[in-house]
Amino acid sequence: MGGKLVGKALIGQSGGPTCVINQSLVGAVKEAMKNRDRVTGFLGARHGVDGILKENFIDLFAQNGSTLDDVARTPSAALGSVRHKPSPDECKRVFEICRRRDVRYFFYIGGNDSAETAHLINDMGRDAGYELRLIHIPKTIDNDLLVTDHCPGYGSAARFVAQAFMGDNLDNVSLRGIKINVVMGRHAGFLTAAAALGRQHDDDGPHLIYAPEVEFDEKKFLADVERVYAKAGRCVIAVSEGIQDQDGEEIAARFISGVDAHGNKQLSGSGALGDHLAGLVARHMEPILGKAPRVRADTFGYLQRCFPGVVSEVDAKEAFAVGRHAVRFALRRDQDGSVVIRRKAGPAYGVTYGLAKLEQLAKHTKSMPREFINDEGNDVTQAFLDYALPLVGKLPVIGRLEMKMA
Amino acid sequence: MGGKLVGKALIGQSGGPTCVINQSLVGAVKEAMKNRDRVTGFLGARHGVDGILKENFIDLFAQNGSTLDDVARTPSAALGSVRHKPSPDECKRVFEICRRRDVRYFFYIGGNDSAETAHLINDMGRDAGYELRLIHIPKTIDNDLLVTDHCPGYGSAARFVAQAFMGDNLDNVSLRGIKINVVMGRHAGFLTAAAALGRQHDDDGPHLIYAPEVEFDEKKFLADVERVYAKAGRCVIAVSEGIQDQDGEEIAARFISGVDAHGNKQLSGSGALGDHLAGLVARHMEPILGKAPRVRADTFGYLQRCFPGVVSEVDAKEAFAVGRHAVRFALRRDQDGSVVIRRKAGPAYGVTYGLAKLEQLAKHTKSMPREFINDEGNDVTQAFLDYALPLVGKLPVIGRLEMKMA
Repeated sequence: MGGKLVGKALIGQSGGPTCVINQSLVGAVKEAMKNRDRVTGFLGARHGVDGILKENFIDLFAQNGSTLDDVARTPSAALGSVRHKPSPDECKRVFEICRRRDVRYFFYIGGNDSAETAHLINDMGRDAGYELRLIHIPKTIDNDLLVTDHCPGYGSAARFVAQAFMGDNLDNVSLRGIKINVVMGRHAGFLTAAAALGRQHDDDGPHLIYAPEVEFDEKKFLADVERVYAKAGRCVIAVSEGIQDQDGEEIAARFISGVDAHGNKQLSGSGALGDHLAGLVARHMEPILGKAPRVRADTFGYLQRCFPGVVSEVDAKEAFAVGRHAVRFALRRDQDGSVVIRRKAGPAYGVTYGLAKLEQLAKHTKSMPREFINDEGNDVTQAFLDYALPLVGKLPVIGRLEMKMA
Repeated sequence: MGGKLVGKALIGQSGGPTCVINQSLVGAVKEAMKNRDRVTGFLGARHGVDGILKENFIDLFAQNGSTLDDVARTPSAALGSVRHKPSPDECKRVFEICRRRDVRYFFYIGGNDSAETAHLINDMGRDAGYELRLIHIPKTIDNDLLVTDHCPGYGSAARFVAQAFMGDNLDNVSLRGIKINVVMGRHAGFLTAAAALGRQHDDDGPHLIYAPEVEFDEKKFLADVERVYAKAGRCVIAVSEGIQDQDGEEIAARFISGVDAHGNKQLSGSGALGDHLAGLVARHMEPILGKAPRVRADTFGYLQRCFPGVVSEVDAKEAFAVGRHAVRFALRRDQDGSVVIRRKAGPAYGVTYGLAKLEQLAKHTKSMPREFINDEGNDVTQAFLDYALPLVGKLPVIGRLEMKMA
């Protein structure tokens, strides 16, 4: 096997949307278009595995260039996404459909659940002796995939969170109070940590950042808020939706009953955690201040994963390149895997693209390394800033009046 | 009186921040800088009336040009804002400070509460026979000031809301379900209505829009959602934070106990209304669908008023011009008032700037005209789109794959 394999390509998108997931789609399609001698057709599955099972396919080679360019710049899965994780039986049907349709190149864009699905289907092909080159294309705003330096989608979501905190910090400077913002990321704190990326002056918020990697102790949290407020007269706080108490229980789960298709408690799409924390802070601060403090909570929710116009140029470029490289890797020889981004050594930011084994990404997710979080567990470190700043692109400049008194 | 009045200027910012409130500040400062023979100094009050009472002033003529340019592009009140509405006694002290400091030009940037404060101080000057030219500079994301065609600050907030719904609609297309987004605007539905401005295709959401001007009937709301979902298999909904029930009670107020400095119930900074509506929809749809529907709610919160990088160019330009015109009007002759934007007749968008009497703006606010809302009370009309689209600037293009099946 190997060498000049000829056949159709199939691609699907899975999981939560990102601002650049279509860059990867279009990157793959455009690269395949350059290799029509090898890739005889390109099926786009509507809503991922569900679309494959229903044979609901769009002809991606029938798209014109300007449509593809517009789609690339458009957030959220253009093919439609899915959270359905196929059973082994469904994977078998997927594989049979691929064989019947002469699909030889299979691309699946998604997070680690998608890598697992891809891995299952890949095994079916191997067992049946049917050459199917299966490449997983990473995407996740959570940035929680193993092996890759970072995930396409993270930079743009991190940019949204950074800009949101820049604005909210200015809001809080202008009208003082205590502000809590709840950020996505169930197990990985990368997105919550991005709250720090827009800080430009010493006193800029967020003043406190709580990632899910550190046990959330309400007493310590309240003491932190009290200390910051006493010093600064205000406090902006970033909290991950996934913060857990001493028993490892997600605090948000106390208030939220929904469960997603993977059986995970639904943490987003509700303001309950923010409201709970705001209530805690208000009750704690009122006797200290002798009056009701101004405490507000916002939950960024879906805005942070899919906001048109707030996109990291670096992220967009890399997402496109990851899609393009997926096709290049598939065409090169009989192999499967997940495209990974490797950061070049040295002070200037640069990356290369490689292929990791699917099983390396499928089973587990990545948390923030402890060296990205300060000793107190309530802020990020310079190491995190060095890691993440190149990923979000140039942020807006924040002007300040010179404090010459009159 | 009148003619070549010589003395200092004073400016303050009040109320919730906007993305362009500093454009007005810088517009006023730059115009005054051109007239130093008349304006002998420019005091910037820190945190509005509070800063005046404490004589906490920044020297605005000591700022260099590039600082001012950066500040103009930065969201949220650069001088600091305030929600404190001064008592008549405090207004008297404000006036005395003005007289002692030789302040002859007084500019106050804010909403209708600010116009009322300005009006009070203006009367004091008049009664004392001290020539004080007092100009109110409008700003509000709610767009609820009388007389002016629209308010600086609205266009940028409307742009944020429009882009947010563009992204959220794409999210909802990709992963189907029912999505409720709660938008700011206690009494005026202009900002909630802006949810419609990004619709580019017939089936784009939001599919339902509920402004506070129309009584919110939960039964009708649930019937609306059921109908849209049955047809489209998904539903995106825009709801104003200020929706009221049949008794004129704000629905959000059932869940929220906070009160602001003006005695208004605090509606923002909590996810409770969204969570309530999501619960209603989930309970209503579950027996219809035979399974738990995917229902989520987001509350846009403070992001929509202060997000750096999501700014309407039209709004920024007009906000600057309103500040500049405030100074021009003040220099021209002995007069007071609020700068208003007048829309030129004809198909091409254009505006002129005028001065309205303070008392015209001070007492009441503006609601959305009924012709901006459809008969059903669950969407906007073309008249609203014609009114609002020129204010938000060119929105991102949304690309769609051509549905050529394979």
